[in-house]
Amino acid sequence: MHILIIGAGGMIGRKLAASLARSGCLGAQTITRMTLVDIAPPPVPSGAVAAVEALAADISEGDAAQALAARRADVIFHLAAIVSGEAERNFELGYRVNLDGTRALLEAIRHEGSRQAYVPRFVFSSSIAVYGSPFPDPIPDDYVQAPLTSYGVQKAISELLLADYSRRGFIDGVGIRLPTIVIRPGAPNAAASGFFSGILREPLSGQRAVLPVEETVKHWLASPRSAVKFLIHAATLDTSSLGARRTLTMPGVAATVADQIAALRRAAGPEAVELIDRRRDEVIEGIVAGWPKSFAPDRATQLGFTAETSVDELIEVYLAEDAPGAPRAD
Amino acid sequence: MHILIIGAGGMIGRKLAASLARSGCLGAQTITRMTLVDIAPPPVPSGAVAAVEALAADISEGDAAQALAARRADVIFHLAAIVSGEAERNFELGYRVNLDGTRALLEAIRHEGSRQAYVPRFVFSSSIAVYGSPFPDPIPDDYVQAPLTSYGVQKAISELLLADYSRRGFIDGVGIRLPTIVIRPGAPNAAASGFFSGILREPLSGQRAVLPVEETVKHWLASPRSAVKFLIHAATLDTSSLGARRTLTMPGVAATVADQIAALRRAAGPEAVELIDRRRDEVIEGIVAGWPKSFAPDRATQLGFTAETSVDELIEVYLAEDAPGAPRAD
Repeated sequence: MHILIIGAGGMIGRKLAASLARSGCLGAQTITRMTLVDIAPPPVPSGAVAAVEALAADISEGDAAQALAARRADVIFHLAAIVSGEAERNFELGYRVNLDGTRALLEAIRHEGSRQAYVPRFVFSSSIAVYGSPFPDPIPDDYVQAPLTSYGVQKAISELLLADYSRRGFIDGVGIRLPTIVIRPGAPNAAASGFFSGILREPLSGQRAVLPVEETVKHWLASPRSAVKFLIHAATLDTSSLGARRTLTMPGVAATVADQIAALRRAAGPEAVELIDRRRDEVIEGIVAGWPKSFAPDRATQLGFTAETSVDELIEVYLAEDAPGAPRAD
Repeated sequence: MHILIIGAGGMIGRKLAASLARSGCLGAQTITRMTLVDIAPPPVPSGAVAAVEALAADISEGDAAQALAARRADVIFHLAAIVSGEAERNFELGYRVNLDGTRALLEAIRHEGSRQAYVPRFVFSSSIAVYGSPFPDPIPDDYVQAPLTSYGVQKAISELLLADYSRRGFIDGVGIRLPTIVIRPGAPNAAASGFFSGILREPLSGQRAVLPVEETVKHWLASPRSAVKFLIHAATLDTSSLGARRTLTMPGVAATVADQIAALRRAAGPEAVELIDRRRDEVIEGIVAGWPKSFAPDRATQLGFTAETSVDELIEVYLAEDAPGAPRAD
C-alpha cells in the first residue's frame, strides 16, 4: 500500500508519518511506500520499513498536483493549508493554497482516473472554523456552516468539493473537522488560539504563560495523538455508511479555561497555576467569542471516532509524547 | 443609477429587466443606465427610459468579468448559470460557469475596487438545491447545506464566496435561494421539476400534461413575479441587519401535487383536471424524493420578502402575466 501525505512537514503531518512508519501498516494493509510532501522537504521518520520519499511541492503551482496524482497512491492525506491568521492577512495566498490547491489536487485525481481507473481514499483535514456564531451549544451535525474567516470559507468550500467528487465517484473522500489541538508541542505561537495550549504547556515546564480571556471561555479540544488517530480511522473506515455527507465533526473535550486550570493544578500543583498571568486582550476575546464552544458529534462517534474525555487526559498525552524529554517525542 | 444584469436572457432575467425598465427606478433611485448581459445578446425591454445596452459575454472566459466590473455598475444582478441537469451531465461546464464564472466576477470586482473604491450591491440568485436530504420539514434557516447535485454544490460554494467577499468589504452581497418557479411560461421542458408547472400550465390552455409522481409529493413554489420581487428587494434592502449570513431562503408556497390539482379545479373546472395523465416515472420520483418539501424562511420574512400563499395565487399570476394572450406578458 502506497500512502501520500501532503502537508507532511506540519505538526500533525509529522506525527502521522511517524505513526504510520512505526506501525508499518494502515488497517489490515502493509505499507510498502510512503510519499511525504510539503513546501520544504519534510522529515523522513526514523525506523520506517517502507520506502519513504520526501518531496518539496506546492499543490497550487504548475503541474505539482498532477505529478502527485500520477503516483497513484492508495490513500492520500491532504493536510496542507495556509493557517487561519495568515489566510486572513493574505487573502490571495489563502485562496490560492486552501481552495485552488485542494481543487487542483481533486482535478488531478479525476484526470488520472479518466486515463485509467483510480479512486483513492482521500482524507481531508478540515476544521471547526467552518462554523461561525451565532450557534447553539452544543452544535449538532446538521448545523449550517457559516464561517467568519476566509480560512473557514476555504475549508467549507473544500468540504463541498470533497462531497461532490466522492458522489461522482472520482475519489473516496472523508473529511474530518479537527478540534483545536491541545497541548500543541513546541514554542508559543502568535495564533489567537495559542493560549489554549500555552496555559498548560508553559506552566508544566515551569515557564510563565499569558491567559488573555476569562476563565468561563469554553472551547473544543483534542490532543495531537487524537488528531492522528482520527486521520488513520478516516483512512480505514467503511465509507458506504457515510452517505453524501462526507465530512464529520470530530469528538473532543468541551472544556472551559477554568477546567483547564483545575486539571493543571491536579497535574502539577498550585505553583504551576501561579505561573499563569491573567492579561485580558480584547482582540483575542473578540475572536474567541465567535468560536464554537462544543459539539454533539454523533455521526463521528457512531462511526467509531474517539477522543479524550478530560483535560487531565490531554495533559497525560503531552507528558507521555510531546513534552521536552518525554518518553516518545516524535 | 447603473444596473448590470448578468444572465439577462433567461426567463427571470428578462422579467427583471422588463420590470426595471417599466418602473424606471430601483428603490428611491432613478435608473439612468442598464447593461444586460448573456451568452447571446439578451432582448432590450421596450419602453425603457434609461440607456440600455445588451451585450454577449461569458463571465467564465478571458477577461469578460473584468470588462463588466470596469463598468462600475451600482447594482449587479448575477443570475447566469448552467442549469441543474446540464451541470450534472457536463461536470466541467458546470464548474466552469457556476463556480469559476462567479469567482471571476467577484475577483474582477475586488480588483476594480483596489484601483478605485468600488463596493457594488451584488445580488446573487442561488437555489434551494443547496439542500439535500435527509432534512426536517420544514427546513429552518440554520440547517446544513449538503447538496446532492453538482449544481447545488456550485451554488453553495458561491454563497460562501459571497459571504466572504462581503465580510471583507469587496462587495455588498445578498444571495437569495429561489423556490421552484411555478408557473413557468412557455413550452414544456425536460427538467425533472418541469411537471410542477406543466400540470397547471398545459391544462389551463386545454392541453394534456403528464404527472410523473404521486399526489402526496410536496414542494416549495413561487411565481416568476415573486422571483423578480425577491431580486429587487434584495437589491434595495438594508444589509446592515444581515450579519455574516448573506444568503436567504426565499418564502414560497409549500404545496402538494394534490393542492395544485385542487387549485386547478377551482380555476378551470374538472375538465382541466381530466387533462392530467398520471404516468409514474421512477427516475423523476427518485430525483424529487431528494428535494426539499418546505422551509421556515424566518430571516427572509423578517426582512420583508413576501411571496404567494396559495397555488390559486400562482395560477392568478400566470393568467395575468404569462399565459398566451395575458394582459401583461413580457
